[in-house]
Amino acid sequence: MENKNKKLKALFLNCTIKYSPEVSNTEALTQKLINRMEEVYPNLEVEFLRVTDYNVKFGGASNDMGNGDEWPIILEKVKKCDIFVMAMPIWMGVRCSVGQMVIERLDGTTKGTESQFPLYNTVAGVVVTGNEDGAHDVCSNTLYNLAHFGCTIPPNTDVYWVGDAGPGDSYIDAHGELSPYVNRNIEMTAQNLIHGALMLKEMPYPIDLRPLKKKMAAQMQIKTEVMREAAIQLKERFERDKE
Amino acid sequence: MENKNKKLKALFLNCTIKYSPEVSNTEALTQKLINRMEEVYPNLEVEFLRVTDYNVKFGGASNDMGNGDEWPIILEKVKKCDIFVMAMPIWMGVRCSVGQMVIERLDGTTKGTESQFPLYNTVAGVVVTGNEDGAHDVCSNTLYNLAHFGCTIPPNTDVYWVGDAGPGDSYIDAHGELSPYVNRNIEMTAQNLIHGALMLKEMPYPIDLRPLKKKMAAQMQIKTEVMREAAIQLKERFERDKE
Amino acid sequence: MENKNKKLKALFLNCTIKYSPEVSNTEALTQKLINRMEEVYPNLEVEFLRVTDYNVKFGGASNDMGNGDEWPIILEKVKKCDIFVMAMPIWMGVRCSVGQMVIERLDGTTKGTESQFPLYNTVAGVVVTGNEDGAHDVCSNTLYNLAHFGCTIPPNTDVYWVGDAGPGDSYIDAHGELSPYVNRNIEMTAQNLIHGALMLKEMPYPIDLRPLKKKMAAQMQIKTEVMREAAIQLKERFERDKE
Amino acid sequence: MENKNKKLKALFLNCTIKYSPEVSNTEALTQKLINRMEEVYPNLEVEFLRVTDYNVKFGGASNDMGNGDEWPIILEKVKKCDIFVMAMPIWMGVRCSVGQMVIERLDGTTKGTESQFPLYNTVAGVVVTGNEDGAHDVCSNTLYNLAHFGCTIPPNTDVYWVGDAGPGDSYIDAHGELSPYVNRNIEMTAQNLIHGALMLKEMPYPIDLRPLKKKMAAQMQIKTEVMREAAIQLKERFERDKE
Repeated sequence: MENKNKKLKALFLNCTIKYSPEVSNTEALTQKLINRMEEVYPNLEVEFLRVTDYNVKFGGASNDMGNGDEWPIILEKVKKCDIFVMAMPIWMGVRCSVGQMVIERLDGTTKGTESQFPLYNTVAGVVVTGNEDGAHDVCSNTLYNLAHFGCTIPPNTDVYWVGDAGPGDSYIDAHGELSPYVNRNIEMTAQNLIHGALMLKEMPYPIDLRPLKKKMAAQMQIKTEVMREAAIQLKERFERDKE
Repeated sequence: MENKNKKLKALFLNCTIKYSPEVSNTEALTQKLINRMEEVYPNLEVEFLRVTDYNVKFGGASNDMGNGDEWPIILEKVKKCDIFVMAMPIWMGVRCSVGQMVIERLDGTTKGTESQFPLYNTVAGVVVTGNEDGAHDVCSNTLYNLAHFGCTIPPNTDVYWVGDAGPGDSYIDAHGELSPYVNRNIEMTAQNLIHGALMLKEMPYPIDLRPLKKKMAAQMQIKTEVMREAAIQLKERFERDKE
Repeated sequence: MENKNKKLKALFLNCTIKYSPEVSNTEALTQKLINRMEEVYPNLEVEFLRVTDYNVKFGGASNDMGNGDEWPIILEKVKKCDIFVMAMPIWMGVRCSVGQMVIERLDGTTKGTESQFPLYNTVAGVVVTGNEDGAHDVCSNTLYNLAHFGCTIPPNTDVYWVGDAGPGDSYIDAHGELSPYVNRNIEMTAQNLIHGALMLKEMPYPIDLRPLKKKMAAQMQIKTEVMREAAIQLKERFERDKE
Repeated sequence: MENKNKKLKALFLNCTIKYSPEVSNTEALTQKLINRMEEVYPNLEVEFLRVTDYNVKFGGASNDMGNGDEWPIILEKVKKCDIFVMAMPIWMGVRCSVGQMVIERLDGTTKGTESQFPLYNTVAGVVVTGNEDGAHDVCSNTLYNLAHFGCTIPPNTDVYWVGDAGPGDSYIDAHGELSPYVNRNIEMTAQNLIHGALMLKEMPYPIDLRPLKKKMAAQMQIKTEVMREAAIQLKERFERDKE
C-alpha cells in the first residue's frame, strides 16, 4: 500500500440505543473492523465512543442546543477526523433512533460559512447489526446523508451482519464473526477507507461552496417572497371559486 | 371462524424477475401460504399467476399501453378479488423491477370516475423472499402503495423469508419452510386476511371519492395556473437580480 | 355514516424533535385532521400529546426502562385507543429520531402474554411534514411497523405535506393548509379511520396469538440450539481448512 | 481546476419508464447537468442514452440473458466510463422499474474474475425527478448499490427535483430549471464528479479482490454444507418435538 507516513485519524461512533455498560453487538463488530484497520495502516489514530454515554439533545437547527447538550464534544471529534464510521443497530427494519439523532445533529455542520462543509475530504463507512433484516436501508440512508454532509464514499465500505428472518441470536451469540461475507467486507472496508483517506489528503476537493451558498441564499429569498405572494393569490382564488 | 358461506376470491401475483419455467423461491413460499388459506377457509377461490408469463409494458399513465400490452388481462383479475397478495423477491435490498412495474401499472386504477378506487374493500398482504436482507423495505413500500390504491391492510399480513447477511441459499435450498417465524407469520396472515375480507364484505367503506376528486381537480387547476404565473415572476426577478 | 352512538377514542402522538413551547408544523397539520375528525364523528374522544414533553428513554426491550422513564404514561394511552395516529417530521429524508424512538418502544407491546397484542383492533394513520421530500419513506415504514404491532391500516389514512426540492418554508409559513391534495387526504383519512374503527368494534379479529407464540418460542429454542451447534461446526471446519 | 489534459468519459443512463419519443423530464434535468459538466471540463466525452430504447431483459444472474437481450450493448459502455450517472424518475415514492432493472443487471458485473469489479475507479452520481416526494429514497438506494458495484461516491453528486406534495406539474412544466437548490446541486455535482474522476485516475484503488473472493467462496461452500446439515437436524428435532 501507499505512503504510510501520513497520520490518519479515524472516528467510530457507536449509535447503539443501549446505555453503558450494556453489551453492544454493534460494538463487537465495529471493534473487529478497527482491529483490521490498525493492522492495515499502523499510523492510524482511532477514537471509538458510544453516543448514549453523552447527553445529546434532539435538534436539527443548531450545533449546540444548550441545557447541558454534549453534542458539541462529539462534533469537535467529527470535524477533525479523516475517516468517519457510523455504527448502529437496526430497529424495526429502520436506522435506530440514536443513529437518526446523530444524523439530525450533523445537519448543523452544513450551515457554516467556511469554503467547504467540515466533512469534506473525509471518507465515510458504516457498520450495521441486527438480528434480522434492514441493513440495506440503514446503510443506504446513512451513507447518502453523509455524502450530503461532504463525505466521500469509497467502494464497499459498509460492514453489516444480520441473521435470517425473525427473532434469533444477535451478532455475538450467533457467532457472526464467522461470516465469510462479513469478513470479506471488513477487509474491503478497511483497505478502501484507508486508500480513500490518503487520496483525499493528496488531492482534496477544490470546490469553494461560498459563492454557491451566497447565490442560493439570495435566490431563495426571492423565491420565498414569490411563493408567499402566490399563496395569497391562491387563497383569494379559492375563496372566489367557492362563491 | 365466522360465517363461511361467503365465497372469497384471492389473487396472488408472483412478481419474480425469472421467466417460466425457471424455479421461483417466491412461488414456493406463496404456495405454502395459499395452502394454509385454503385450509382456513375452504370457500376461497384462488388464482395465482406469474407476471413475467405476460407481456406487460412499462407505464404509469394508462391501464392499457397498447402494442400487445397484456396488463389489462391481469388488471381484470385485480379488480375482482377480495384478497390481493403481491409476492416478490428482493434484489439489491429493494423491491424487484417486476414488482415495481406492477405498482406503477396499478397507479392507473386510481384515475377512474367510480365512487371508489377498484381496490377499495379489498384486503392486501405481501410475500417476500431474498437470500438476505431487504424484506422490511419491500413490505413497507408495497403495503403502503396498496393502501394508497384503496386496499385495507390487516395486522400481520406480511410473510417474508430472508437468509443471513451475504450470499447463500435461497428459500427452497435453505429449507426456509422450517422457519418458526415464517410459519407463525403464514398463520397470522392467513387468518387475518380472511377475517379482514369478511369484515369488508359486511361493512364496506361508505366513502364517496367523486366529490373529493372533483374538488381537488378544480383546485389543482387553479393552483397550476397560480404556480405557472409564479414561475414567470420568479424568472423575471432572477433576471433583474443578475443585472 | 353508520351508528354514531359508539364512543371512539383517538390518540395522536406528535413526535416532533422540538421541545415545547417551540412551534411545531406537524402539530398544525395534525390539528387540522383532528378538527375534521371531530366534525365527522362527534362522539370522538381525542387526546393529542407531544412526546418530547415526556422523559422517554431509549430502549427496545422493555416497556419501562426505569430511571424516571415516562414511556409507561404514554403506553397506557396507546393501549386504550381505537384510533392511533403517529405524527412526525422528516429529517434528512428519514423518519425523525423521536418517531423512531416511539416505534422502538412500541416493540415492547408485542412481548406480552395476552391473546392479542394491545394494538389489535385499533386502526392507524400517519401525519407527516417536511419542508421537502421523504414522506413516502416515513409513511410506509411507520404504517408497516404499526401493522406489525397489530394495527389495521384502512385505505388512504396518511396525511403528508412537503414542499418542493430543497430548503424553503415549512407547512405553516408555506400555507400548506391550502394544498388541495393535503385537504383531500385529510377528508379520506378522517372518514376511513372512523369507519375502520367502527368496523373493528363490530367485528374484531378473532385470532388467538397464544398458541402461535408458544409454538414459535418452542421451535425457536430448538433452532437456537441447532444454530449454535452449527456455529461450532463451522468454526472447526474453517480452522481445519486453514491448515 | 486541475490538469485538464486527461480525457474523461461520462455515461448518463436515462432510466425513464417512457418509450421514445415521449418527452422525459428526467432527460431535461440530466441535459442541464451534462451542459454544465462540459463547460467545467471541456475534455469530457459524453454519452447519454435512454434504456427503453434497448430491448433489455429482466435478470439478475447473467450479463447476457439471450433472446435478443441488448443489455450487453449498454454494459460495454458502463465498463468504459470514468463517470457514471444514473438518471430516473420516482414512481409511487420508489425507484422506477427501469432503474431497478438496470441495478439488477449491474449486479452481474460483480461476478467476474478480474482483480476489481469493472466499476472500481469510476465515480457515480444520480439525477432524479418526480412531481412529488421520494427523491431521498431513490438517491440513497441507487448510490449505495453503485458503491457496492465498485463506484466511488463524491460529496454532493445527487441532483433531484420534486414538486410539493401531491399531483402537479413535473420538472419541465413546473419550470424546475429555476430552482436555486437544484442549480446549486448541479454545480456541486459537476465539479465534484470531475474532481473525483481525476483523483481516481491519479490514485486508483490498489485492492485486489481475487484472494478475498477466493477465500469467501471456499468458506461459503463449507458454510452451505454446515447449514444444510443443520436444516436436516432441525427438521428431525421439530418432528421429534411434535410426537
